[in-house]
Amino acid sequence: MKGTMKAARIFVDWEPREGSQLGSREIAGKVALAGNKFWRNPRVEIVREAMPRIGPTEALIKVKACGICGSDVLMAASDEEGYTRYGYIMSNGAIIGHEFSGEIVAMGEKIAEYQRRIGQEVLKVGTPVTAQCVINCGFCEKCKEGKFDECWLTEERGFSLDGAMAEYTVADLRHIYSLEDLSQRYSGEELFLAGALIEPLAGVYKALVTVAGSLNPGDNAVVIGGGPIGLAGVAMFKAIGAATVILFEPSSGRREIARTMGADYAFDPGEVNLTEVVLELTKGIGAKIYLEAAGVAASVCSDIDSLFKAGEAGSKLVLMGHGDENAMVCTETLIGGYNVVVGSHGHSGVWRNVIRMVATGLIDPRKMITQKIALEEAPEWLTILRSNKEEGKVVVVF
Amino acid sequence: MKGTMKAARIFVDWEPREGSQLGSREIAGKVALAGNKFWRNPRVEIVREAMPRIGPTEALIKVKACGICGSDVLMAASDEEGYTRYGYIMSNGAIIGHEFSGEIVAMGEKIAEYQRRIGQEVLKVGTPVTAQCVINCGFCEKCKEGKFDECWLTEERGFSLDGAMAEYTVADLRHIYSLEDLSQRYSGEELFLAGALIEPLAGVYKALVTVAGSLNPGDNAVVIGGGPIGLAGVAMFKAIGAATVILFEPSSGRREIARTMGADYAFDPGEVNLTEVVLELTKGIGAKIYLEAAGVAASVCSDIDSLFKAGEAGSKLVLMGHGDENAMVCTETLIGGYNVVVGSHGHSGVWRNVIRMVATGLIDPRKMITQKIALEEAPEWLTILRSNKEEGKVVVVF
Amino acid sequence: MKGTMKAARIFVDWEPREGSQLGSREIAGKVALAGNKFWRNPRVEIVREAMPRIGPTEALIKVKACGICGSDVLMAASDEEGYTRYGYIMSNGAIIGHEFSGEIVAMGEKIAEYQRRIGQEVLKVGTPVTAQCVINCGFCEKCKEGKFDECWLTEERGFSLDGAMAEYTVADLRHIYSLEDLSQRYSGEELFLAGALIEPLAGVYKALVTVAGSLNPGDNAVVIGGGPIGLAGVAMFKAIGAATVILFEPSSGRREIARTMGADYAFDPGEVNLTEVVLELTKGIGAKIYLEAAGVAASVCSDIDSLFKAGEAGSKLVLMGHGDENAMVCTETLIGGYNVVVGSHGHSGVWRNVIRMVATGLIDPRKMITQKIALEEAPEWLTILRSNKEEGKVVVVF
Amino acid sequence: MKGTMKAARIFVDWEPREGSQLGSREIAGKVALAGNKFWRNPRVEIVREAMPRIGPTEALIKVKACGICGSDVLMAASDEEGYTRYGYIMSNGAIIGHEFSGEIVAMGEKIAEYQRRIGQEVLKVGTPVTAQCVINCGFCEKCKEGKFDECWLTEERGFSLDGAMAEYTVADLRHIYSLEDLSQRYSGEELFLAGALIEPLAGVYKALVTVAGSLNPGDNAVVIGGGPIGLAGVAMFKAIGAATVILFEPSSGRREIARTMGADYAFDPGEVNLTEVVLELTKGIGAKIYLEAAGVAASVCSDIDSLFKAGEAGSKLVLMGHGDENAMVCTETLIGGYNVVVGSHGHSGVWRNVIRMVATGLIDPRKMITQKIALEEAPEWLTILRSNKEEGKVVVVF
Repeated sequence: MKGTMKAARIFVDWEPREGSQLGSREIAGKVALAGNKFWRNPRVEIVREAMPRIGPTEALIKVKACGICGSDVLMAASDEEGYTRYGYIMSNGAIIGHEFSGEIVAMGEKIAEYQRRIGQEVLKVGTPVTAQCVINCGFCEKCKEGKFDECWLTEERGFSLDGAMAEYTVADLRHIYSLEDLSQRYSGEELFLAGALIEPLAGVYKALVTVAGSLNPGDNAVVIGGGPIGLAGVAMFKAIGAATVILFEPSSGRREIARTMGADYAFDPGEVNLTEVVLELTKGIGAKIYLEAAGVAASVCSDIDSLFKAGEAGSKLVLMGHGDENAMVCTETLIGGYNVVVGSHGHSGVWRNVIRMVATGLIDPRKMITQKIALEEAPEWLTILRSNKEEGKVVVVF
Repeated sequence: MKGTMKAARIFVDWEPREGSQLGSREIAGKVALAGNKFWRNPRVEIVREAMPRIGPTEALIKVKACGICGSDVLMAASDEEGYTRYGYIMSNGAIIGHEFSGEIVAMGEKIAEYQRRIGQEVLKVGTPVTAQCVINCGFCEKCKEGKFDECWLTEERGFSLDGAMAEYTVADLRHIYSLEDLSQRYSGEELFLAGALIEPLAGVYKALVTVAGSLNPGDNAVVIGGGPIGLAGVAMFKAIGAATVILFEPSSGRREIARTMGADYAFDPGEVNLTEVVLELTKGIGAKIYLEAAGVAASVCSDIDSLFKAGEAGSKLVLMGHGDENAMVCTETLIGGYNVVVGSHGHSGVWRNVIRMVATGLIDPRKMITQKIALEEAPEWLTILRSNKEEGKVVVVF
Repeated sequence: MKGTMKAARIFVDWEPREGSQLGSREIAGKVALAGNKFWRNPRVEIVREAMPRIGPTEALIKVKACGICGSDVLMAASDEEGYTRYGYIMSNGAIIGHEFSGEIVAMGEKIAEYQRRIGQEVLKVGTPVTAQCVINCGFCEKCKEGKFDECWLTEERGFSLDGAMAEYTVADLRHIYSLEDLSQRYSGEELFLAGALIEPLAGVYKALVTVAGSLNPGDNAVVIGGGPIGLAGVAMFKAIGAATVILFEPSSGRREIARTMGADYAFDPGEVNLTEVVLELTKGIGAKIYLEAAGVAASVCSDIDSLFKAGEAGSKLVLMGHGDENAMVCTETLIGGYNVVVGSHGHSGVWRNVIRMVATGLIDPRKMITQKIALEEAPEWLTILRSNKEEGKVVVVF
Repeated sequence: MKGTMKAARIFVDWEPREGSQLGSREIAGKVALAGNKFWRNPRVEIVREAMPRIGPTEALIKVKACGICGSDVLMAASDEEGYTRYGYIMSNGAIIGHEFSGEIVAMGEKIAEYQRRIGQEVLKVGTPVTAQCVINCGFCEKCKEGKFDECWLTEERGFSLDGAMAEYTVADLRHIYSLEDLSQRYSGEELFLAGALIEPLAGVYKALVTVAGSLNPGDNAVVIGGGPIGLAGVAMFKAIGAATVILFEPSSGRREIARTMGADYAFDPGEVNLTEVVLELTKGIGAKIYLEAAGVAASVCSDIDSLFKAGEAGSKLVLMGHGDENAMVCTETLIGGYNVVVGSHGHSGVWRNVIRMVATGLIDPRKMITQKIALEEAPEWLTILRSNKEEGKVVVVF
């Protein structure tokens, strides 16, 4: 397509920290697997540029909504020495944004050919879609085993490759998911708002259901942290049969949202004793599953340890929140109680199920949205969100 | 306790069918593992008799509610030759009834001693309780492995041992479950109505979650048959994250109940083409899990086969409905589609989770109750329900 | 590469049976999803032709060994009306052969580029390799979920696309597996013989471990049928911790091979009562897992039913053997015993693990080889094997 | 039975450490859940005493072999302040010993009655048997769910109740396992030596197979520590299909035993770099499962962390070795790699499978025996083994 578009790009300077080892991917110079060891002086700019082109299996998507993720905030933030605070894969000059939805405006010729072969026209101009941000290589041993999140050469939309915080974006057929199912419940902007938040739900689904092996319906669940991941965790737990869901989150606003999304209880961890509250509300048996979504594993691990010991055996701690410090695990507690600690961060393979959960009303992710902003406001909000821990989800709408 | 009570007892005559082989248990003469091969002329009578005595680890329970199960109806019904229609474990003279709730009125001395040792007074006079009907032996290899439903010497409350369709019943500490948790949501008769229906929910939980390995949240589900097991299946599916739940049931009344319990769609299988309807409502992918709760596996297997073939690979058929005929399984369909057929009938090990699901409102089993009757009406209703396939659950209240 | 090569191609005539419905794939006219409904007069010819060309992510492989699979025999055989006996995906003119090993002789330019990026030179000229026969599309919903065996547009090497019964073959990086690990145990021709049989082992691994959820170590196992799949099943069961493995197979030669591959017992099913033998050797508990690898599910289902009933609850029947008839499943047996029936046929995602099992000596698939033949002999052996049910695996060596 | 017998009893003095909180079980004064907080001055004495009596469901067993476990050594050892070093359940005056085998010499009358009912005479005078050491209460919620190892009121044979390091011992039908199957492979003393070591194998089976969810056959495995648990781990890994099993153990004697039990490699961790060795031998992918059986989780956790990071995603660390220090877990490593840390210590529910594994030769636990001693030598060996870390298993034979 001809014409120009606006996009939010992040720019950084290549200044490897002393002692940083360059792997095969850093040597190429365009991507750092651990951004905060290589990239300095991050700044996000709204640029006007030519429309992107699409390849034969790609679609051009008019973006309708794009959420701001905590990792977007970290990429754009710098530490005392000026390095980006984001510790994962990241390139210079990428369009940011990976929680998005939009409408197809053009498709490469191979997509039509493919759809003829399967006998279904799943995608066409006008179809509402989203796309995953894990862009796996397709050739490594992990990709050959269908474990795309563990790809040896993974790229990420909105981090190392161009993302969706722009008027238009491009995605390959391999990564696109139709949001047509959402139309049975939502329409107009509401559909696109819900659709943009499939991504964070997919991450939580992958962690809780696929990686951690889910809970048994009727188990109790605890969520540490009521940011978007924690809120998605609350809703997911309730949708899959958790009996009592207890959230710990300092912000009263987020606690309020959590209650609308299914939390039976929501506490300020500064005002209660986490261990005592959980034991009391669960009548002494504790939760069978704990989701750490605040990046404070190091701080809460003694509480979890107490709960593992006091509560029922066979409980799990699921780590999703990135944080600088490491958690201390009481070896004897795990041995004595058959407890499990496990982490997760990806989202491949679960999108259709998540979309159906939203389409049928099991989860309404729009409830976590507290701000709808324009693209031009994104840089400012990336700054605001460094310190503001009251908002739910901030979404750029187009 | 002194005094007398009323109870519904079933009486049958020992007339082994020609050719019936007596196993070690039948030889003792009091119990038949396959009732319909040994017991004739079943009749249910309301008798007045002495109160039962309790042993040191037993509790005497004042019954408040007791549901009529399909197997109660079958026990009391006879075929053309006068044999009971019930094909499982059954004794002469047992008090029937196994879906019950009540209040503790007395406890054996070892229960108090036990509660001192654990430091919790879980049970006391006045505590609302239910009890499982599987009475496992505790000594066989399966009991030693914790697989109580597979016990080699199992007895069943209300079938081979005295049950709960009586003013009072007795249960051992090993099989009692407190219903105290229900009081956070229910009180009075409502609590006991909900509590009496934990048993059918436990059977469905065991089948769908434990034995069949659950679904992935966001999968679609189909239920064949809207009797109490099918209705419980609808509610369970929805509570554990099924996207779309479709019920097939001839009775319009039951279909209506199913909708209130979570069915997204409910059809009369005589009026629609099952395969077509499921494919249409699931956009061609079918359900990932099918619950057969009508005892018509033989009739629906060609539909399931078509759905296995047309829908997504890796689907499951869970058999719970007893029926006389066997199902034909297309070998090539299972091989081609990685499909699974599995059956289940027990309920051990899942009760606390089910109670928490009801206590926290994930499932409200009271919705399936269509009749509350007096004990004296039970024999009549056992007759009515042979042909009446419109009622939901009929519950004897005290 | 220049020059010519010899290859075994299958030719068939497009004559859809009356009433056969053409799907989107048959309409294109080159591939039939159910060969036996469309293709007539199959004949295999050894042709001399130009060397194949490779694309940028493909490798040219000098074939060293290629096993004859039962499906090769079926493709080349015709029924009374002249139609091929093979009921799955099949094209006219394809080079047959999909159980193979060989040595890389040339690679497309993108493979080197890819290897630079991952920093490992896994493949180079001279590397011994094999490749899977499932050629998934990469774009459908199943491929996006990593479930390649369930691909909507799957092609199969040696069936719908050119296979490996030829002096040279081509495979894409997405489907190639290095056999370098085998060199720690094998060298020369022995390595390639072992490597050619990774494919049937992968099918058995997928069925028993991935799809059927494995056994618990120390469980007993039964295999019906001692052809290559059954023999692979025997070896796999033993390697993953089966206590007693019992094979039923009419050929005494195959029974002898089975014993060398790990069968504790091997019987002629015509000479013993399957049910009795299994119950006796397992002391009444039966097997926890049954592999049907003979395509006789319909005939053995009453035996399996008896064993399900007499043996321990929670047993599984895994169907792998293609057959014309359908199996009758006793609904009540499955319900009463929590038994499972499941099928499987693919092999994606498990190859590296299988290769390591062979490389470390857990399984030696060479033991099933009874004939090493030249390419020119392949057509004759495809005929011989229609009736000869005595051979283990026949392998074309180059 | 009349007469007297010799037994090894442990005596300790009740001197709660300052600040130790007494729970409901300590208050009774006979059992401490954490021995090292209450019991002082441990000493083991060989006493002559009256034969034990049996209850109606119990058997009197003439002990033939009883292994010394690391926990026996810890019970009998004291720290600087004189407290026992054993941190789990322990009573004053108990006969120690829980890894045993023997022969039934008498049975309570209910056992015969029970066997009549099941129609099998599994146990009789002369039957070789063993028994589990977990003596669960049978009444708590966990026992009602079949999770005996998690019993709220558990007792342990040889710790809080009389064990088997004596000429005779008593066990209840609920906990006895026949060793008759072993006679297909072993006879005389050899059978009893193998039978005495079912217990440590059961602990390892429970940890690796049941709790940790096993490995995928063909995965690599690492064992830290070559004491009896580590050696059992090596044998178990190999028996269930581990490709390469690597042991780290300082004692050359134990390393040698490990090789005979299935270790592909065995290293002195003081002489090699654990991380480097594992990566080299696994060609960079690491192990999928690590068993910590040395009680040094705190020391090896940085190695495991490096291996988690460098190796394949989805790896597991299984903790079995008791140690004083806690392990540091890198939160980001678990999140980044979907890694799991889990602990285990019990053994209920897996005994029959383990016995079959030994009976069919999948594991020969006799290989770990390095000393056969007389009962009178047990006290001395309990002292020797405090410092001697060279022996495999020391077994008291009768």
